[in-house]
Amino acid sequence: MTPTTPPVTLDDVRDAAARLRGVAHRTSVLRSRTLDALVGAEIHLKCENFQRAGAFKFRGAYNAASRLTPEELSRGIAAYSSGNHAQAVALAARELGTTAVIVMPEDAPPSKRAATAGYGAEIVPYDRYTGDRVAIAEALAAERGLTVIPPYEHPHVIAGQGTAALELVAEAGELGTLVAPVGGGGLIAGSGTAVKGLHAGTRVIGVEPEAGDDTKRSLEAGRRVSIPVPHTIADGQALHTPGELTFSVNRRLLDDVVLVTDDEIRDAMRFAFERLKIVVEPSGATPLAALLTGRAGPLAGRVGVILSGGNIDAERFAELCGHQVPAGLPRVGGHPGAGGR
Amino acid sequence: MTPTTPPVTLDDVRDAAARLRGVAHRTSVLRSRTLDALVGAEIHLKCENFQRAGAFKFRGAYNAASRLTPEELSRGIAAYSSGNHAQAVALAARELGTTAVIVMPEDAPPSKRAATAGYGAEIVPYDRYTGDRVAIAEALAAERGLTVIPPYEHPHVIAGQGTAALELVAEAGELGTLVAPVGGGGLIAGSGTAVKGLHAGTRVIGVEPEAGDDTKRSLEAGRRVSIPVPHTIADGQALHTPGELTFSVNRRLLDDVVLVTDDEIRDAMRFAFERLKIVVEPSGATPLAALLTGRAGPLAGRVGVILSGGNIDAERFAELCGHQVPAGLPRVGGHPGAGGR
Repeated sequence: MTPTTPPVTLDDVRDAAARLRGVAHRTSVLRSRTLDALVGAEIHLKCENFQRAGAFKFRGAYNAASRLTPEELSRGIAAYSSGNHAQAVALAARELGTTAVIVMPEDAPPSKRAATAGYGAEIVPYDRYTGDRVAIAEALAAERGLTVIPPYEHPHVIAGQGTAALELVAEAGELGTLVAPVGGGGLIAGSGTAVKGLHAGTRVIGVEPEAGDDTKRSLEAGRRVSIPVPHTIADGQALHTPGELTFSVNRRLLDDVVLVTDDEIRDAMRFAFERLKIVVEPSGATPLAALLTGRAGPLAGRVGVILSGGNIDAERFAELCGHQVPAGLPRVGGHPGAGGR
Repeated sequence: MTPTTPPVTLDDVRDAAARLRGVAHRTSVLRSRTLDALVGAEIHLKCENFQRAGAFKFRGAYNAASRLTPEELSRGIAAYSSGNHAQAVALAARELGTTAVIVMPEDAPPSKRAATAGYGAEIVPYDRYTGDRVAIAEALAAERGLTVIPPYEHPHVIAGQGTAALELVAEAGELGTLVAPVGGGGLIAGSGTAVKGLHAGTRVIGVEPEAGDDTKRSLEAGRRVSIPVPHTIADGQALHTPGELTFSVNRRLLDDVVLVTDDEIRDAMRFAFERLKIVVEPSGATPLAALLTGRAGPLAGRVGVILSGGNIDAERFAELCGHQVPAGLPRVGGHPGAGGR
């Protein structure tokens, strides 16, 4: 690889798309007249909340796992995650006829454990206060000959995540702007690679929760910086530093990173529920929050938005959104209960 | 019309579809691997919760209103409803460049009033304990020359509602069974007309809330019977007797009507939220409840399901579904939070 060759290219994303055909869902792209009117642009929502295992993560996990040799595959795969990546790797293993071992904090929500186990994975619990999940996963992998599928620090994972944006452009057409969440940075690295590879002029805007602004700070500093582990409802983005590989991609691709508060995320989740009639988890709602608050800047023309996941249970949703209507969200048609898109 | 000519035919539904093209949404048809596995059939979910104004009602209201003469239209339209039909008529009026007057109980939820007013309609409140909404609407109509668009007792309304099923068959193919909610009976009358007109062998199963079984009882009695006004969370189906016109259609078309309890409806709403990542209001969830509980009977082959609406606000959803997990719903993959379709 020469210094000028990016670690992931549009062709890599296209290769991933070929592998995912018939395995991952080609998720819906929804439109909303109400949202278009509020934002003043033509918004195309790529619904990765409808993806298998409930989030875009399955794309990257499957793409990476599917490239293992038959022998590697037969020994099994592993991951460390308490979130959507755990379920994604578990499902990828099942689809590929192998086994997955997931290192998960022992106090992970029972629902997440059960979901991961439901795909047939073995769960290895660890104490999140004293244990080092990466070390545990790597020791297990060495001992059993497993291959670890990282959540974002891998070109095949990044390329897989980019297929969501590839599909979005295929359906919506050339985008003026793409807005997507930034957690570890894999989704936006892959998506940015796809949309800028197709149309160099597309602007790519990442969205982070205000408390988890490690990528924004890192871009401003010109190097990866660490922040204290953030407290935010956007649990998929509660990271303290960007990935090394993903940051090397994102520093070239991102035109801007904007921040949204937890209250704005809640408003966006409620908007998705009441107006779009879809369920979006907090991290998945951050791009919508950036649109509704105007933080994504003045937008015009065709805007693609990746709603990255929908894994939230009814109890947690009720806790976050089931009480009073927060102020500050512009309303069209009188009330969100109005329905209609 | 000879005695053997039904009041609504497949051609009427096709005519309605032509009028609705580009005006109503051609709503998504969703699939779910989880649901297919639970039910043991190939389930195609027609998402009328994604329809404009949040429910199938816009189809019938617009179809009926669009057939008025320019002079009738210029005088305006009217409706009596506190639910989805109110919003549908208000939106149809706006789309057709006229005005709507909606007679609505003075204690209707503020959100419903605001939503209806948000489409530009004039709201005429009445006291639901002492007033007669039909009489009020008809007096207003006579006084101002308005045309009342009834919620189901009209061939154009029934034909409009049937376009949802027409689209469903066009996308999914010939159905072995169609399952849809029964309230006033317009949706299932139109949908039954469409699917049996296309394929005479398609079974049509209606679903009512247990407390609101007026159509089931009427079919058993062979004539329209009245029940006390039912108490059920499925507010779109809280009717005490079937429509005269809709019953005359439905007694010919319905193969069965099955009942679901409010708890089963809540389970189905939660399933839609956590597994399908979509928002369905109580009445809209009744067919899903019939599938998940097995009350729709053993199903096989291709089954079409109409999820009729999604107008429920986050507070009400939290109240109904945000607490403990009710027992009794079969679980796949360990926990509904598993996500994935």
